[in-house]
Order: sequence, then structure tokens, then C-alpha cells
Amino acid sequence: MTTSTDPPRAVVLLSGGLDSSTTLALALAEGYETYAITFDYQQRHRIELQAARQVGEYLGVARHLTVSFDLREIGGSALTADIAVPKDGPATDIPVTYVPARNTIFLSFALAWAEVLQASTIFIGVNEVDYSGYPDCRPEYLEAYEHMANLATRASVAGTTRFVIKAPLLSLSKAAIIKKGVHLGLDYGITWSCYDPVTTGLAETTGGRLAGGGRYMPCGACDSCRIRQKGFEEAGLPDPLLQLIDSHAV
Amino acid sequence: MTTSTDPPRAVVLLSGGLDSSTTLALALAEGYETYAITFDYQQRHRIELQAARQVGEYLGVARHLTVSFDLREIGGSALTADIAVPKDGPATDIPVTYVPARNTIFLSFALAWAEVLQASTIFIGVNEVDYSGYPDCRPEYLEAYEHMANLATRASVAGTTRFVIKAPLLSLSKAAIIKKGVHLGLDYGITWSCYDPVTTGLAETTGGRLAGGGRYMPCGACDSCRIRQKGFEEAGLPDPLLQLIDSHAV
Repeated sequence: MTTSTDPPRAVVLLSGGLDSSTTLALALAEGYETYAITFDYQQRHRIELQAARQVGEYLGVARHLTVSFDLREIGGSALTADIAVPKDGPATDIPVTYVPARNTIFLSFALAWAEVLQASTIFIGVNEVDYSGYPDCRPEYLEAYEHMANLATRASVAGTTRFVIKAPLLSLSKAAIIKKGVHLGLDYGITWSCYDPVTTGLAETTGGRLAGGGRYMPCGACDSCRIRQKGFEEAGLPDPLLQLIDSHAV
Repeated sequence: MTTSTDPPRAVVLLSGGLDSSTTLALALAEGYETYAITFDYQQRHRIELQAARQVGEYLGVARHLTVSFDLREIGGSALTADIAVPKDGPATDIPVTYVPARNTIFLSFALAWAEVLQASTIFIGVNEVDYSGYPDCRPEYLEAYEHMANLATRASVAGTTRFVIKAPLLSLSKAAIIKKGVHLGLDYGITWSCYDPVTTGLAETTGGRLAGGGRYMPCGACDSCRIRQKGFEEAGLPDPLLQLIDSHAV
């Protein structure tokens, strides 16, 4: 049972990427006791799970839950099925890295946990400026989700909790997000964005705190890498993850 | 790619219980090519997974997908945490067998699969008459879910699919559901409803097609057993599952 003197609780979706890590830093700065939830859905870039764990520890979450399921069985995405990750730069339509109903699945587990924790706020790091065109990153989607959530649970029906979905990065540029995170003391060197990590033949020559012995590095060409790179350029800052890798390269 | 001459596809949530099995029979009777989705969430009554498998085979689904995750980590329910299942008859408020956001989680996976399958219809066997007072079994919840679903996916945003959530049992009594299922040829002897199966010391003396050697039988006292029993009584029919168990008892 929480009491009125306890800090408010929030569940924060944390992938280990730049946006969700910044969102966690913002939730903490707003005074929430944070409960990070991460999803192992057998994504191609499962290295992000390690980044999520590190970010949670670094920023100091009250608890970190990783929920596991296999979206490869459902497929339909370059991140979960045998479809190549595009490397030619962001497309004009929704790219094949879109994972069907992913945020809806993620938010649903977050909602379940929020109800049990008596947390009324769920933070999600979606962004409609420098994003990849995903439908479940738009404000009208989030509003509809919030409305549904408040009809879905015992806590909301009983009137004890009114769930709020907060998406503080929604209208920020990637550069603005990065500046905000740096200001809050977030170390982007422990985050991970790449959809298609390079591993082959690099075991001995690359590094980085995420690399688990130096076996992973970002591909540099997928949409997520390009958007991250552009964000750091526009923010006028170096990407500490790449610096780290460079310093370990032969 | 589906063509206009193919039968329409539907994803059907199938727990192996009386309601979802009847819903599957109805979807088939309506001419849908059915894709059953079942969830192994480490529920106390995991025996229902075996029932779901049998019902899917018996009725003839195009494919049957079981998605696994562990809701015990989230808890908050007598079906997933160390909380006793009530045996004193249905309560007036939402009982402890309520699983936080369960239908929201289930529908989200169904939505993902529906998008990949190009299925525009999702069937769910919820019922607001003889139910247990769960908030996510009400029409206003389903309407809100459907609205959200149509903002969540590539298929809905592109205009290629308008998702419809069908809940054909919503306003039927349990007796009416049973009569409908019997009329459609469903064998309720292969379904499973009990939340808290009895296993101890019964290995040699009980039976049933579900029992895997006769080790499981319904408790007869949980809400789900009571609602099922009342339904068969009001329908003026014997419950074939209980008949089967009786015929195997010493």
C-alpha cells in the first residue's frame, strides 16, 4: 500500500535506447519512484537489453522487470523475422523495421504492472519528430491508449487510479532530447540504438562498455543509427558510444 | 497475400474454456478462416492450455499459436500469485481472480498477429452476464480497445485494414452460450473452466480426456466452476466433462 507521503510511482518503458533512457532520466527528475520495464521479444538487437539493464542501474530505478516473449512467432518485421534491415536511409513510408502492435503490447504489460504497483503514470519515450514513421508513436494513438487503459483495469474502474500515459519526448527533436539527457547527467555511452549490430570478425578489434568483450558495434547505416548520428551532430556533441568504440579500435 | 476470393481471416482468443471455445465455434460457423491464439502466462490452471489445443484441433483452426510469458512476475491475482482462489461463490465486487490488464495484453498480441495475417477481425469470448465482474469484459472497454487498435498499426493507418473486435457472447447467459455451442457440435467435454484444478491423491481415481492419466479434476467450488455448473443446469444439460470424470471415478 502506498501512502500520500510516498513519492508517486511511475512505470517507465526502457529499451536501452536513447529516447527511453532520456525518458527515464526525465521521470526521475520529476520526482517519480521509477519502475523500469524492458522487453525481450527476441529482437535482432537483443544487445539493447544489456544497455537497458545498465541504464536502469546507472540512473537508479526502484525495480527493473524484463518481460520475455517471442515475437518471431508473429513476425512481420525486420526486427523479428528474416527480413533485411534497410541501410539506405529513412524511407518516406513506414519502414519494415515496424513491429506489429509493439507499443500496444509493451504498454499493456506496463499497465498491468502499474495497476499492481499502484502507479498511475506510465512513461513512454516515443517521439513524432525524428522517428521512423511508426503509427504507434503518434499522439492520437497515445490518447486512445490512455482512454482504453482507464476502462481496462480494476484500479481505474474502482476510481482509485486514473492512468496517465506520459510521452515527454513526443515533440522534441533528437538533438533536443540528447541535450536534455546530457543536462540530466545521462551517459549515452551506455545506451544502444542500432537495429542490426555488427558482430562478425570484430571480436578482437572493437570495444565499448556494452560490447561484452568488444564483440558488438553499431552498423552505422540503419535508420536508428542514422537518426542517432544526426541527433548528436545537430546537438553539436560527440556520441560517447562511438568514441568508446573508436578508442578500442585497432 | 490474401485475395478477395479467400475466406476472411479472424484471430480468435482461445483459452480452452467454455466461452472462448464457443466463440471459436461461432467464428467458424460464420465462415472465417480461424487463427487461434492461446496464452501460457504461468496461470495456476495451465491445464487449460491442453484443453485449448484439443478444442483447436477438434474444431479445425488454420493455425494455433501459443504465446508464452510469465505474469507471475507482475502478480496481483489469485491466478498468478500466491493468493488463494475464493471458493465461497461469486463476490459482489471484482474478485481476486482478476488478472491485471489480462485481456488488454491478450488482445495486443492478437492485434499484432491479425496485422501480419491480414485478418481484420478479432474474436474474444467475453461475456457481461454470467461473468466474474472483470472490467475488461465490458462493451465500453471493447469499444475503446477497437478504437485504439485502429490507430496503432501500419495496416489501419494505411487504410488496408479496419480492425473489428467481435464479442458474440457479450450479452448471452451461460446457458444460452452452452446451447449455442452444443448446436454447433462443440464437445464441452474437452473444454476446461476450473481456476484451481485438484490434483493431489487423485491420480488413480479420476479421469477424463483432459486429465493426462486422470490427475486433474475441477475443484467444483471456484467461481468459474460454479458459473459453469449453473450454466449447464439452466441449459438443462449435463456437463460432459463431469460425466467423464464420474465415469472414471472409483
